[in-house]
Amino acid sequence: MKKTECDVLVIGGGPAGSVCAMTAKMNFPDKEVAVVREFELQMVPCAIPYVFSETLGSTENNLVSCGPAKTFGITTIVGKVNSIDTEKKIARMEGEEIHFDKLVLATGSKPFVHASLEHGLEVEGVFTVPKNVDYIDKMHDYVKEKQRMIVVGTGFIGIEMAMEFAESGKEVTVVGGSKHILKNSFDPEIAIKAEEIMLAAGVHYVGEDRVTRIIDTEGKVGGVQLKSGKILEAEVVVLATGYKANTELAEKAHMKFGHYGGIWVDEYMRTENHDIFAVGDCAMRRHFITKEQSKIMLASTSAAEGRIAGSSLYGIKYLKHFSGTIAIFSTVVGDVAFSSAGVTYTEAISGNADVVQSAFEGSNRHPANMPGARKQYVKLIAMRNGGQIVGGQIIGGKESGEMINMIGLMIENEMTVYQVMTMQVSTQPKLTASPPMYPIVVAATMLAQEISKDGKTV
Amino acid sequence: MKKTECDVLVIGGGPAGSVCAMTAKMNFPDKEVAVVREFELQMVPCAIPYVFSETLGSTENNLVSCGPAKTFGITTIVGKVNSIDTEKKIARMEGEEIHFDKLVLATGSKPFVHASLEHGLEVEGVFTVPKNVDYIDKMHDYVKEKQRMIVVGTGFIGIEMAMEFAESGKEVTVVGGSKHILKNSFDPEIAIKAEEIMLAAGVHYVGEDRVTRIIDTEGKVGGVQLKSGKILEAEVVVLATGYKANTELAEKAHMKFGHYGGIWVDEYMRTENHDIFAVGDCAMRRHFITKEQSKIMLASTSAAEGRIAGSSLYGIKYLKHFSGTIAIFSTVVGDVAFSSAGVTYTEAISGNADVVQSAFEGSNRHPANMPGARKQYVKLIAMRNGGQIVGGQIIGGKESGEMINMIGLMIENEMTVYQVMTMQVSTQPKLTASPPMYPIVVAATMLAQEISKDGKTV
Repeated sequence: MKKTECDVLVIGGGPAGSVCAMTAKMNFPDKEVAVVREFELQMVPCAIPYVFSETLGSTENNLVSCGPAKTFGITTIVGKVNSIDTEKKIARMEGEEIHFDKLVLATGSKPFVHASLEHGLEVEGVFTVPKNVDYIDKMHDYVKEKQRMIVVGTGFIGIEMAMEFAESGKEVTVVGGSKHILKNSFDPEIAIKAEEIMLAAGVHYVGEDRVTRIIDTEGKVGGVQLKSGKILEAEVVVLATGYKANTELAEKAHMKFGHYGGIWVDEYMRTENHDIFAVGDCAMRRHFITKEQSKIMLASTSAAEGRIAGSSLYGIKYLKHFSGTIAIFSTVVGDVAFSSAGVTYTEAISGNADVVQSAFEGSNRHPANMPGARKQYVKLIAMRNGGQIVGGQIIGGKESGEMINMIGLMIENEMTVYQVMTMQVSTQPKLTASPPMYPIVVAATMLAQEISKDGKTV
Repeated sequence: MKKTECDVLVIGGGPAGSVCAMTAKMNFPDKEVAVVREFELQMVPCAIPYVFSETLGSTENNLVSCGPAKTFGITTIVGKVNSIDTEKKIARMEGEEIHFDKLVLATGSKPFVHASLEHGLEVEGVFTVPKNVDYIDKMHDYVKEKQRMIVVGTGFIGIEMAMEFAESGKEVTVVGGSKHILKNSFDPEIAIKAEEIMLAAGVHYVGEDRVTRIIDTEGKVGGVQLKSGKILEAEVVVLATGYKANTELAEKAHMKFGHYGGIWVDEYMRTENHDIFAVGDCAMRRHFITKEQSKIMLASTSAAEGRIAGSSLYGIKYLKHFSGTIAIFSTVVGDVAFSSAGVTYTEAISGNADVVQSAFEGSNRHPANMPGARKQYVKLIAMRNGGQIVGGQIIGGKESGEMINMIGLMIENEMTVYQVMTMQVSTQPKLTASPPMYPIVVAATMLAQEISKDGKTV
């Protein structure tokens, strides 16, 4: 039995784990930091759909090595931890024991499949979308020659997979189980715009029906049966129905769990045992407004959690201001970017939050006849009392991916529409909207009017 | 003599004036709002350089009408106000008197030319860059057939003009008077990157020498003489040496002025007389850190000022949090975007501010072999004590124009590196950097390390 010793052991080499290890090494350069990861090379999770079109073409173009860890002076161990002993502070692998002082669990997530569809997992031609290179390679080879695809699920991965299949000339049907796609991140009027682009790309959408059975034709998938009784034929069925926390090790160690199955953590990502931390998709998350537990899984949030844990291993070094995921996302449908941060209006109202909304559509360049200019639509959602920004959604060009980060910052900082309406922005003809019609500012100005309607007006 | 009455009179229809009028009408819908502007059609100021290449091709593609004002129920009067009577509350035009209750001066700026070069203004082939359609049209026609151009000045307009001329196949020399271009907005290591692109596009740069004389060859420009004695020949000389406040009306009315010639205003854009406001380039500006008066002129800042004045006309409706321009700019050199907000390191040090800096270069897509990916360099500057972000500079793709607005927001909100290093961002392969290597967050993390070097480390 090989025996390895380290100060900080991180289990998992995804965004949460790798960032946590780097942050730990930066903050505590004298400590020995080790990361255990299952594979030498890991994929960029959010780019998996792009492996299936010419965008990336293969998993080879979507790999991240453990090279950066080495540069930082972090030890990488390739393998699988089978169990942890939290008392004795030992992680056990096949033929190796790792002794640690601090442990960070960053074991990620794995595809979630409704119990009613688990029967399909054994059928040839039925796939989920795990973050596993070998699996995705095999799936890639299998779907290459196939033409008729069904994607089950209307979250980001489902829609991105469907669009990449369509771009490769395949016949694609998305089965939703909800009237509109991307419903957790966008209000209907915005989801509809994404749907229009998807339909125009030739993707079929079955919204208000859902898959009840996967059809097994002599071991190969033949299609799916819907709740309505309708049958859709297909050569490939992709179940993109979400992810669940991968918590096997924590379960075996009898750790405490949160509501949706994530490992219980506090704001510093500490478990009940302050020598053990959990970060990323395997950890419990809270919603930034309702403060209730949340199922949102995002690599960027995972990285932020990794940074918090990495600097808090040996005590509270930096004060943690904020608690809760702000659910900040972007995707590209066709060549239009759709971005969302915080709550949608639908979600806020159903959560009994007293909010107001306003939207403005301008251009992402100025004047609007600059080459490459396109529409830029910004919607903001704010608390009626207090005026804090709690959500935003954008439809626009590639710049949307950074504009939504600006809105995220407003949410994290509890900025009000009154601050946003007079914020100073940089505007440049080739890069942004015009100074008078900068959509975030105009939408905030409209929100201030909306709020004052209810109060005293001059 | 025609007599017109209104509640709010705005003189000037540029970004500050037009936004102020719209904001006034939104906040006080019962008030009669009128705007006097010299021309029915006005240009987008920042896009003037693009008139000179195929980007826009002519001023026609760069015009904004007074149409939006009409939609808002604002009266537009085309003409020139010759004088204002602040006691009787009358603005006088040729053949018309406008009686007002509240007055907003938004008279903008005009090109500034050093006294030593004013002699050149009468010479054929010598131009400034005013926001005047007729002038730019004539200049456009004149330069069309000319080949050898000199641009004097290395600010944004100067460099953008030079690059557009070069793109149109002309031979261009920029004369700087400073070692590096764009020196007010970028630290040398970043300015050098912009210079490299400019030189690669065939533009010549004369840095540490300056123009002392414009050569008049029988009424036409022959070139310029430099301080070193050297003579540069040219058919066209463009003086892009900055702008000065256009304050003729205020001067005649004996109003109070700030240090650099702008109309004195308080944080609500009120002059000493609280019925009279000044916004935009004609008004005094303060620097957000040093609190000293500033010469910075930006359409986006002007629009922000217009919003503040427009909502403060009938008393303080919204609290003003922030005072001072954060000097937030972007430009595009070649196809690389350069953006800056707040102070540069050079400026901070020379202003005796105790700051630290860190920079990180990553990719603007992830994985880095996504099609269209390019380098993304982010530098942050923070107070050593307190850690507040006070400046940032970006070199990258088109998304930089919105990323710098995020940094602007950090500056306006006095956010610290500790908040930024754990901020939640949205990352998407086709739109942004990767979650672990998001450059703003990595640069903030490095800054926190830099600061703690000076203090106690664990």
